[in-house]
Order: sequence, then structure tokens, then C-alpha cells
Amino acid sequence: MQPLSIGIIGAGRIGRLHAENLTLRTPRTNVLMVADVSEDAARDCARRYRIQHAVTDYRAVLESPEIEAVLICSSTDTHARMIEEAAEAGKHIFCEKPIALSLPAIDQALAAVDRAGVKLQTGFNRRFDPNYRRVRQAVEQGEIGQISIIHIVSRDPAPPSIEYVKVSGGMFLDMTIHDFDMARFLVGSEVEEVFTAAGVMVDPAIGEAGDVDTAVIMLRFANGVIGTIDNSRRAVYGYDQRVELLGSAGAIKTENNYPNSAVVSNGLSVHRDLPLNFFIERYTDSYVAELAAFVDAVLHDKPTPVSGQDGRTPVVMGLAAGKSYRENRPVRLSEVEHG
Amino acid sequence: MQPLSIGIIGAGRIGRLHAENLTLRTPRTNVLMVADVSEDAARDCARRYRIQHAVTDYRAVLESPEIEAVLICSSTDTHARMIEEAAEAGKHIFCEKPIALSLPAIDQALAAVDRAGVKLQTGFNRRFDPNYRRVRQAVEQGEIGQISIIHIVSRDPAPPSIEYVKVSGGMFLDMTIHDFDMARFLVGSEVEEVFTAAGVMVDPAIGEAGDVDTAVIMLRFANGVIGTIDNSRRAVYGYDQRVELLGSAGAIKTENNYPNSAVVSNGLSVHRDLPLNFFIERYTDSYVAELAAFVDAVLHDKPTPVSGQDGRTPVVMGLAAGKSYRENRPVRLSEVEHG
Amino acid sequence: MQPLSIGIIGAGRIGRLHAENLTLRTPRTNVLMVADVSEDAARDCARRYRIQHAVTDYRAVLESPEIEAVLICSSTDTHARMIEEAAEAGKHIFCEKPIALSLPAIDQALAAVDRAGVKLQTGFNRRFDPNYRRVRQAVEQGEIGQISIIHIVSRDPAPPSIEYVKVSGGMFLDMTIHDFDMARFLVGSEVEEVFTAAGVMVDPAIGEAGDVDTAVIMLRFANGVIGTIDNSRRAVYGYDQRVELLGSAGAIKTENNYPNSAVVSNGLSVHRDLPLNFFIERYTDSYVAELAAFVDAVLHDKPTPVSGQDGRTPVVMGLAAGKSYRENRPVRLSEVEHG
Amino acid sequence: MQPLSIGIIGAGRIGRLHAENLTLRTPRTNVLMVADVSEDAARDCARRYRIQHAVTDYRAVLESPEIEAVLICSSTDTHARMIEEAAEAGKHIFCEKPIALSLPAIDQALAAVDRAGVKLQTGFNRRFDPNYRRVRQAVEQGEIGQISIIHIVSRDPAPPSIEYVKVSGGMFLDMTIHDFDMARFLVGSEVEEVFTAAGVMVDPAIGEAGDVDTAVIMLRFANGVIGTIDNSRRAVYGYDQRVELLGSAGAIKTENNYPNSAVVSNGLSVHRDLPLNFFIERYTDSYVAELAAFVDAVLHDKPTPVSGQDGRTPVVMGLAAGKSYRENRPVRLSEVEHG
Repeated sequence: MQPLSIGIIGAGRIGRLHAENLTLRTPRTNVLMVADVSEDAARDCARRYRIQHAVTDYRAVLESPEIEAVLICSSTDTHARMIEEAAEAGKHIFCEKPIALSLPAIDQALAAVDRAGVKLQTGFNRRFDPNYRRVRQAVEQGEIGQISIIHIVSRDPAPPSIEYVKVSGGMFLDMTIHDFDMARFLVGSEVEEVFTAAGVMVDPAIGEAGDVDTAVIMLRFANGVIGTIDNSRRAVYGYDQRVELLGSAGAIKTENNYPNSAVVSNGLSVHRDLPLNFFIERYTDSYVAELAAFVDAVLHDKPTPVSGQDGRTPVVMGLAAGKSYRENRPVRLSEVEHG
Repeated sequence: MQPLSIGIIGAGRIGRLHAENLTLRTPRTNVLMVADVSEDAARDCARRYRIQHAVTDYRAVLESPEIEAVLICSSTDTHARMIEEAAEAGKHIFCEKPIALSLPAIDQALAAVDRAGVKLQTGFNRRFDPNYRRVRQAVEQGEIGQISIIHIVSRDPAPPSIEYVKVSGGMFLDMTIHDFDMARFLVGSEVEEVFTAAGVMVDPAIGEAGDVDTAVIMLRFANGVIGTIDNSRRAVYGYDQRVELLGSAGAIKTENNYPNSAVVSNGLSVHRDLPLNFFIERYTDSYVAELAAFVDAVLHDKPTPVSGQDGRTPVVMGLAAGKSYRENRPVRLSEVEHG
Repeated sequence: MQPLSIGIIGAGRIGRLHAENLTLRTPRTNVLMVADVSEDAARDCARRYRIQHAVTDYRAVLESPEIEAVLICSSTDTHARMIEEAAEAGKHIFCEKPIALSLPAIDQALAAVDRAGVKLQTGFNRRFDPNYRRVRQAVEQGEIGQISIIHIVSRDPAPPSIEYVKVSGGMFLDMTIHDFDMARFLVGSEVEEVFTAAGVMVDPAIGEAGDVDTAVIMLRFANGVIGTIDNSRRAVYGYDQRVELLGSAGAIKTENNYPNSAVVSNGLSVHRDLPLNFFIERYTDSYVAELAAFVDAVLHDKPTPVSGQDGRTPVVMGLAAGKSYRENRPVRLSEVEHG
Repeated sequence: MQPLSIGIIGAGRIGRLHAENLTLRTPRTNVLMVADVSEDAARDCARRYRIQHAVTDYRAVLESPEIEAVLICSSTDTHARMIEEAAEAGKHIFCEKPIALSLPAIDQALAAVDRAGVKLQTGFNRRFDPNYRRVRQAVEQGEIGQISIIHIVSRDPAPPSIEYVKVSGGMFLDMTIHDFDMARFLVGSEVEEVFTAAGVMVDPAIGEAGDVDTAVIMLRFANGVIGTIDNSRRAVYGYDQRVELLGSAGAIKTENNYPNSAVVSNGLSVHRDLPLNFFIERYTDSYVAELAAFVDAVLHDKPTPVSGQDGRTPVVMGLAAGKSYRENRPVRLSEVEHG
């Protein structure tokens, strides 16, 4: 079988990460071109990962007849448009989350994908993490029976820059979106209603920028499950990523990942090093695995494991969470959907 | 110093537990009388713990001039009235939770206590558990900075009988009440608003009895902290009692207590025995410690560590949680308070 | 059934602990008398635990016709003689370890016990600890198959005083003796040969007193199992008491006991409080349980769970361990036995 | 800087692993040639990792003027001879452990390396594992003070084939050799004397082949530290690789590595999946890191982190361990060294 020819759009942090994973760790792929509005960024990425072509105009990627699939790793506001153009160019698409911050933009992009009959995978990498996969497996296999409660802890080690906060779409669409996806993925049912309690407890500047930095979001699923998401922009001990489910036949929970397992006892305490600090270190394997799954889906003409709809629903949840926070009342997703 | 002379009203499970703890494990006490409507129960308890007098009428306890303090361990519907009578009889009072299920009844009882100038301690024993005390200590000493989020897990191993459910006052006043107390105790601030998501996921008979068996309750504290309480009437693996707090300088969490620390690895898994099954085993030490604290408060004329107001507020929270559940909206405690 | 009438000889730390456990926590017992060469110690113990008689001459205990059983908690050099006298007086005997430091003295004491037909239990309390009981249960029930390796970690938080070291009989007979007992108890087979590597790494004064403070002792059991005991007189983080066994079907290990389960994460580490510091705190329950077992054995005329032979064999092992250390060669227990 | 041109000798399991790590995960390297006595093996490896040349005669590697460094991954009996020839050909050498099973062969190889002035690194990959590195760091930085005791647990999930056992050189030189290296590496001092207790507890066929399958080896270090190595050819729960050190200021221990952190509680137990099964999965990262270190040492003309002497000493220890086992007495390394 021929390797899959790929073009990467966006050579920022996540674009470079994917470039490295594709070129070094994903069999049966051939990265032909990388595009970035910054010529330096594109060239540097190309040189580092021995990618043949570096361009500044992403349309060069879309127009290349050899390229079969594209990775969209540019800024969020360009995602939906590029999905449309890539679909029209007949390319299979891997797009970083979120697809867009507005539903019409997403719907237009998904419609283009449908029309073109190309594959689209959204970059919810955490689904490929060994801990969460194990939880999903437990749920699927009935290991803990019928689920009743899910609790997701998702805290960043430190808030992003205020500049980033201002263009992020807000914590619910920027950060919680991963947890919304995780909630659906693990429970295997759709959320119907959310209720948000949130506040500014980390940095007043985040509040001045119109955002929150701490939130607890309650979820009600169609199958009756009740969920909570616990978000903070600052956990001084590192990246805190855990989940816990209760079912009729038991419970399952995951722990953080650590750089080593050494435990030191001295005259003061029994202690270990802090957990892995942030997403690049913590989710290393899941980034590799999501690309392998995408490549596999394209090469063998299988559905991608994270569909366009999977990219859309967490945005609906994020919009509902924001509305619930502003109005201090439970908000049904259908309100946002048809709003 | 003379030992404290005590009478026990109610020789059911909790009454007998207190009788044992007072007679075997609490220095400077002298249990003179035990009362129970069942003569057999009173006599059996007296014989087992070498208590001089067994009576069927609790008034004998209140009328005994030698008795300085009473433990009210009878059924919930009698608590408030007995507090009043005991206060009027000039006895110091330790009363099992809840004081009553209605606020007027509680307020009348507390007013009687105030008038009489006697001491009243409510039986929120978990405050005396080493795990929770350690958490409270961490909060008080600023070990994890300013608190932003608290998450309480409190699940019973199995639901009580339907007969019990029917007279329990409902899960929020019967079971969650301990967690409401814990939330206030650990955070050190009052809750102003609650939002409840709940359902019947364990046993339809509980729903038919008008109660729920699974709930997640969101709490908003006066100091901005956001909390969640995760309740289930059934955790098949045993009694699940944990808490987790996030603060500006770190986080703290507790684990369940186990009968032993042995870990077995075989060809299938790495495993350990289930946690201690229910409250008598799990909170053994805290029951002893709460009585020691009560005796200490009376003998040395100090405030009791769990006041009458501490007994009242969780009832307000329970009423608000029920209202929130029925109306599916956040409910401020002031609505219930003045309702 | 009548309660068992007991006299306690020795009101030092361990004598007082047993007095408290008997009077407060052991049903069906009646402590009638406590003897100590120090009148103050005897009186203070009697007052605290409401024991009727305090005497300075232990013979008063032995001569009391009411007393059926004695606890020998005096200094080690008096144990063997008191066992003999108690046996001759027809009393059942609970004796602290070690019975004596020389085999002839032990044998003479055990012979007296045999002649008198009284019961003797040696104070190896750790056998009654929930962790070790769980390990023994696993071995007995074949949960981990045929045992091949046992590793015992037993470290004190800090060395005793040099005065104590000088009269202790040496680390192997004073400290390791508990681990020798544990090795036999857990494996369920006798040790045939030991090899000792040891040194002075904690305090040179211990070396000057002719003792060692750090040792690893290898054990060869009759059934082929290989064992190691890891001893140190100083673990700055607290009392370190763990065990680990490998078998053909799995492995089992125990952890230390902690005052609480709280785990704190801050900007530096993920940590918990130190383990319980020393034997009184760590083995609280096992001291209660060993007395309950003794009382049960006497009242129901059953064999005691830790026999006189169980008290003797660890002394043989301790003597062999010392010889192995001095001669730097493996020493068979039979060398010491018949030496 | 030019990448390092490398040839690989031996395309068995470990040779292929190194080929993959070099070509996919080690920057600044260029694998030019792979040699294996089996033409199929060489070709398959070359094709899979896009290595230009596949040969059956390892001398082609040594004679290639472009190749600067070789990896010797052939069978143990060829290591020493190939080191000599590679050294004479002026190649830098990475050689799998053990260098040889006899000291004269090792010494002849090391002398050739010295004469040629090339670099030699022995494949003790575990030194590069994050857990053990953290322990070494703790020792180096005095985090737990002066070391007194080290305990190494090293158990395979299942014994190798009897065919392998027969040519392995015996458990001490085949399996324990890694632990001998680890002991020296972690403690930072040389072992002077060993004492071995061992037996056949896993499979009688191993005993019939003249080997043992279970052993505990006591180590005495020059700096006074006492160590134990706990080896078994079968831990049914998986690969068991842990270490534990006691020092004057504390203790450190490591745990096994697991495929995920999920903990499941059901009605029977609280359990997690088995640890990673064997060395390829368990030590994945360390294999990558040891090659990176080798490449770095060659490219920057630095000493290799695991010298030829580091390859030799564990063989001395293995020979001494075997002698101690056969003669049932402590054996000084000097006896073997000069024997």
C-alpha cells in the first residue's frame, strides 16, 4: 500500500508536534508540504522534519495534486473556511479543535465535507490516551454496570497569556471543550442540559477580559447520567487530568501521569515529583495515536474515530455552558442549537 | 474533677454505639441511665455496658437529678421536642443529626437551649475523622492557599430499606446532610445557593416512595468557592467517603479507609480488599472523638465544637436542595430560610 | 461465663498498655492486681485503670487465689524465672518477648509450663495486625500459590538509648526477634539457616556498645523459601513495617499505616504525612487482639495462638544471626540449638 | 554537525529494536548497514527501517569506510571478538550486555578498545530509565543522606525457553547482570563480596539444565552499604522491576510501570491492570535514551556513560554469585578476579 501524502497547514506548536509525529512515528505517511503565514516558521518546520516543501500560502497545499490529506493546525478562526476549501479540493481533513466558535460556520464546513465525500477528523486527542481508553473500555464492556455519575477534573498548570484569553473564545470553548468531548465519549450518550457555576479566582485580568478562570459545570445526559466538569486555569502542582465514573456494578477512576514512580520519604513527608506539567508531555502518546487512526481511516476507507459531528457537539455544549453561566440557570442544548 | 454523669435516650444502633464508646473509651464519664421505648432494648444495652438504670420513659432521664448531660439517640421526629425538654430540665445535650426536618421545630428547640443556657452539640461525627480534620487543618493553615473548588464524594454501600426511606425525610436531609455539614466545615464559609441534579438510578422503589437515590448537588459559597457533592445510595464496592479541594497554592484529597494495606498481584490484576463497608467501621474513631469533645466542652465549660446552628444550617441546605431538584433551578438558601 | 481474673506484673510502658487494653477494650476480663518494683508506678497504673490492688512484690500476684492468669511485662531478665514461678503457682501466662536471651533459661521455663499444664502465650503482637493477618491468610489459602521469596522490612524511627542498647541482648534478639517470628508465621515453615550482613551506620556509640544498628539477614526455610529481613535502627521518616512475598501464583505486599489518607499537592511535590511513628501507634489494634486471643484461649481451654515454642525459636534464630555476623558465614540453626 | 553513520550487527529482537530507535527516534544518526547471518533477517530489518544495505557478513560493516560506529547485537558468544575487530577497524562500539561470559575474553576485548582509542558503551539500558535515574539523582544529591541499604527486585514474567537457558551462561550472568549493574550505578560504590541463596522453584527443567530460577543475592559494598537482589524467572503478574534504598536522611523507592492508571472498584476488589509485561514495553524510553547518549558521546567526543569496565564488573559479580551459590559461603569479588 502506498503511504498517505499529507500537507500540514500551520507550523505553530501543535503543527510542529503533528509534523514530528507524522514524520518520525507514523508509518505509511509522507509529509510533502508545510504551510505557514510566517515563512520562517514554515521553513524551520520543513527543515527539522525533512519535509520537501515549505510555503506561506495554504492554497499551495490544497492545490497540490499529490497531497491526499491535510492537517489544519492554523488559528481557530481559519478552521471552518479551510475545511470548506480543503473539502472542495477533495482532500481528507484532520482539523484541530474547535472547528469554529459559531454554529453556522461549523455547519457550513460540515456540509462542504459531506458534499465532497471526504473524511474529516477533529483533533480530540484525549480519546486516544491509554487512561481514558481504558475507562471507555470499562464502560463499553459493562465492567462497572450502568453508569450513573461521571466526574471530570481538568485543570491547567497556569493560565495562558491575556492576549490568548482575549481571542480564545472563552474558557468553555477553549479549554472545557476537551472535557465536553470526553464526557460524551466516556458515557456514550448525549448531554441534554448544562448548568454552570464559574468565577474569576486565578487572575482578575482574566475577568477584565470577559472570561472566567474557574468553573464547575453540571451535565445531564440523555440516558440519565449526571456529570460534573471541574475546571481551573491554575493548578500549581501541574496539569491535572483525571476522571471518575460510578456505575451500578462498580466505579473506575484514573490518576495523573508522572515523570517517574519514585517515592521519597524523609523526615518531613512521603512525597513524589509533580505530575507531568502540560498537554504536550501528558498526552504525548495520544497525539501519535490520533494521527495513526486518521491515516488508518483514510488508507482503509473507514470512518474517522472522531467525526465532524463530534467536533460540533462540544461547541454547542460550550455555548450552552456560557449561557448558563450568564443567566445562572440550567440551559438545554436545544436552546442553543435552535437559537 | 468529677466524671460527667450521662443519660442516654434511645438504645438503637447509634445509641448502643455511643453507650459503648462512653463506657469503654471515654474517660471522665459515668453513664447512669439508658432509656428506650423498648424495655428489652434498654435492658440489653444497660447489661452490656454495665449501666445502672434501664428505663422505658425518657423523662426518667430528664428528671434524674444526678444526670448532667443527655445523649438524644431516639428517632428523628422526637429530637426537637426532647432537646426542648432536656434544656428545660437543665441538661447539657448531645443530639444526633438532624435536629428536625422542619425549621420552626429546630428554631424552637434552639431557643429553648438558649434560654436554658445549656450546651448543645449536634452529632456530625465526621468532623472528628482524622482524614477530614487533616483537610480542615490544611485549609486553616493556608497549606493550599485560597480555596476555589471542593468536591465531596459520599456514597453508601447499599440503600436502606424502603420503610426507612419513607420516614427518612428524603436523601438530602438523611444522607446529604452530613455532606452539607462537611462542606461548611471544610471550606469555612456559608453556602448561599444550591443546584441539584438527581434521579432514581438504584431502585425504582425509592422513586415510588417519593425519594431519589443518586444526586449531584452544586454549592455556591459566600466566599466564592464552588462545590459539588456526589451522592449515591449504592456503591457496590463499599462505603465511599472522599473529599478533594483545590486552592491557589495546591490541592488536597483524601482516600477511603481500608481494613488492611495488603496488595495482591496475580495473573489477572493488582488488587486490594474493598474499603471499610459502612459508617460504623469507617468512622469508628470519629464517634469516640465527638463524645470526648462533648464531655470536654461540658466539663470545662467550653463551646461545643458542633453548635446548634451547625445542626440547623445543613437542614436549610437540605430543604434548598430538594426545592432545587423539584424546580430544576438554582435555589438560594435565603428562599428557604424565609419561606 | 465468669470473666477471667488477671494480674499484671510490670507497670512500665508495655504493662500500662496492656492494662489499658484489658480494662477498656477486652470483654470478659477482670484485672485484679498490678505489681511493679516501683510503688509509684504500680499505684499510678492501678488508679488510672481502676485496678483494685497495687503491689510491689510480684509474688502477691502469684499468691492471690483469685487470679487465674498473669501478664509478665517486667524486664527481660526476669521473664523466664517468673514464668516458672507463675506456672508453679498454676497461673496461665502471657509473657512479653523474649522469654529469655539464653536457651537453657527458656527451656527450663517451658518445662515448668509443661509440668504445670498451664497455658503460655508469647507477646508477638504483630501476628494479630490486620495487614500481616491478611498476608498469612493469602498464604494459607494459596492465593499466591507456593511461596518462593519473602522480604521483611522492619526499621525503627530512631535508635533506643545507649543504656537500653547495652542491656537489650543485641539488635538480633531485641528488634529482629519480631521479624524472625513474622518470617515463621507468614511462611508457615521453619528456618534452617541464616546469613547476616550487618554494620554500624546509624550511631558509632552503638558499635562501641558491641551492637550493630543496620542488618540484612538472609533466611533459608525448610520448605525451600528464601527470605530477607531488612533492619535499621533509624528510618527518619518513621516506623517502617512492611512485608512482601512472591509465590508461584502471584505476590502480596503490605504498606505502612498512616495517621490519615490526605494527599497534598503543591508547587513542589505530591505528598502525605509520615507513617505512624512507632509501635504503640502502629500496632494499636494488634495489642488489643493478642490479649483477646489469650483470654479466649484460657476461657475456652484452647491452645494459645503463639506458643512457648513460638517464643523460643526466634531466640534460636537471633543467636544464629549473631553468630553468622561474627563469623561471616551462613549458620544453621542446629549449630546454635545443640551448641 | 554531520549525523553519525552507524552499522548494526545482528538483526534479532534487540537489533531490530535499536534499528527502529535509531532511524525513527534518534536525531543526528544515519544507519547505513545492517548485518545478520540470516539474509532474510537482515533484509527484512533493512526494508522496515529504510536502511540502505543489508549484508550477511558483519565484516562488511567493519570494512565500510563510511561507518563510524557499530552496534553489536549478535549472540553473546560473538560480542568480545567483534569488539576486538571493530576496535581494530577504528569503529566506535555500542555492545549489548554481557561483553562475554569469561574474564580473559572481556579483558582482551577491552584492551583492543584501549589500543584503538575508540569509544565503547555497554548496553545497560536500565540506567537510562526515568525511575532509576531519579533514584540515582536522589543519591547523588544527598536527598536521602548516606545510603545504608539497597533492595533490588527484578523478576521476569516467565522463564525463557530451556534452549535459551542452556546457552544463557546461567541466571546470574544472563538476568542478574542487569541488577549487578544497577546496584553499582545506584549506590555509586563497588561491591566487594556477595552471598547467594538460590534454588529451582519455577521449573525443574531449569534445574536439570544446571541453572537456578530463583535467587536472593546479598551484596556488600566497599562503602559499607548492604544490598539484596531478589530474582525470579517467573512473576505471573508481569515484569517486576523495583528498587528501594534506605539512607540516613530518608528512603526512596520506585514502583512498576503500568499501561494505564485506571483503578476499578467492583463488588470484589479494588484493582488495576497488570504492570507492563516485559522489557521491551517496560524499558521503551531507556533504549532510546541509551542510544542518544552513545551518539552524543561519539559526536561530541565525550566518555560514554556506561564504560567497558562497567560492562566487565557485573560479569565478575555474576561469577562470584555463582561460586557463592555452589559453595554456600560469601565470596569476595577478588577471589574471582584473580582466580
